[in-house]
Amino acid sequence: MPTRNASATWEGGLKGGKGSFSGESGAVGASYSFGTRFEHAPGTNPEELLAAAEAACYSMALSADLEKAGTPAERVQTDAACTLDFIDGKPTITTMRLRVRAKVPGIDAATLDKAAQDTKVGCPVSRALTGVDIQVEATLE
Amino acid sequence: MPTRNASATWEGGLKGGKGSFSGESGAVGASYSFGTRFEHAPGTNPEELLAAAEAACYSMALSADLEKAGTPAERVQTDAACTLDFIDGKPTITTMRLRVRAKVPGIDAATLDKAAQDTKVGCPVSRALTGVDIQVEATLE
Repeated sequence: MPTRNASATWEGGLKGGKGSFSGESGAVGASYSFGTRFEHAPGTNPEELLAAAEAACYSMALSADLEKAGTPAERVQTDAACTLDFIDGKPTITTMRLRVRAKVPGIDAATLDKAAQDTKVGCPVSRALTGVDIQVEATLE
Repeated sequence: MPTRNASATWEGGLKGGKGSFSGESGAVGASYSFGTRFEHAPGTNPEELLAAAEAACYSMALSADLEKAGTPAERVQTDAACTLDFIDGKPTITTMRLRVRAKVPGIDAATLDKAAQDTKVGCPVSRALTGVDIQVEATLE
């Protein structure tokens, strides 16, 4: 199975310094700073990358789980919101809220919700992010 | 403190389907597929995003920790390698290996190593990825 690589460099101190990251595929890379992470400067940050990773993994995994159950989805869209908060004085990634909209012919809302909750626990990125409270709300389109 | 948003859509089944993701900042977004995730097709995947998130957070956090200790780094570069493996038949993100090179005037290798191991445990993304075995090897430049 694959190993995926990415790099990041930070130069200078926490507040005045600057960072950049890039993935080996060439598809992902940007600069970041104290301002883009902890304040409201425009730009990306690790929490946005985690939200993208969780959303991407979750949409793929729920599609796979529904397919395996004999009710394949036409489309699964996941909006992920990753919150950073200060806990005991330390910046802490507390929650990942997922809002899922799924187009799945022939199933009802309760069946979708059951599948959505199972995928929340079972998908690979969820099983990596066990330090975070992941919450899922799924809606049939 | 901020909440960061990203979205992803998967259309179709696991093997024949296709996905795309994007972050709200506009700095991160790409397509992905079964091939780019589990095989060797060119492109990105959630594991590369996790590697980028960990590398970005770690480089920033080690710089902050060294600054707080009175020995600020000029530069911290982190290469992150995120491995996906099959465990009990399930795709599982098993390890995140970090290779760190740091330019830090006035400290020795043992002091850097101690700081690097502390940051491994303490940085926000490490404390989120508690389902993954994170390993750090740090070198003074």
